[in-house]
Amino acid sequence: MSNIQQIIDRYLAAWNTLDPEQRSTAMQAIVADNCYYADAHLPDALTSREAHDRFITQFRTKFPDFSLQLDSPTQGHHGYYRFGWQLLKVDGSVFTKGMYFGEINDEGKICKIIGFID
Amino acid sequence: MSNIQQIIDRYLAAWNTLDPEQRSTAMQAIVADNCYYADAHLPDALTSREAHDRFITQFRTKFPDFSLQLDSPTQGHHGYYRFGWQLLKVDGSVFTKGMYFGEINDEGKICKIIGFID
Repeated sequence: MSNIQQIIDRYLAAWNTLDPEQRSTAMQAIVADNCYYADAHLPDALTSREAHDRFITQFRTKFPDFSLQLDSPTQGHHGYYRFGWQLLKVDGSVFTKGMYFGEINDEGKICKIIGFID
Repeated sequence: MSNIQQIIDRYLAAWNTLDPEQRSTAMQAIVADNCYYADAHLPDALTSREAHDRFITQFRTKFPDFSLQLDSPTQGHHGYYRFGWQLLKVDGSVFTKGMYFGEINDEGKICKIIGFID
């Protein structure tokens, strides 16, 4: 499942890219156009990569110093994955943590991301 | 998300029912006909409730004394859920544990179950 780990590593790297254009380019390579994103804090799920981009940009504008890091190795099988994440403040302390699980499509792009808070 | 918790509680109760006919009846009430099931140990995913029934029956025949229990409360949002599980031996010791993620359809039935091992 090293391929899934690589995709998730690139997703996290994109997430931690502060420049919205650079992030958008990075996201295009690994996230499907119609990727579905939902977490417990969102009233409505996001149903496109563009909406996903805007969501991250809004978050990064509000919290530019935070970084999203792996908290446990990515596991994958049958096109599904999960990984633990932590959102770190600039001093390295944990702001919040949880788990993402989702799906990779036939083109090797993330097509579903569902977040849960630990 | 108490409804999702109730559905998962009934799924675990069905799983722990030794009689295949009783289990099948219990499964019909909470698992969709076309429910997709995959975990890391399965070569091929199961794509029907009938296949799911047979899978559990095979497991229960091999390990009749094991029970599947919640290891963490079910969390749910946007029709998705996750819960930690543990497979207990008759003496109460943990044989294995992990997490299930999945989806509930519009009829309130489980339509996807993806298992990961901790």
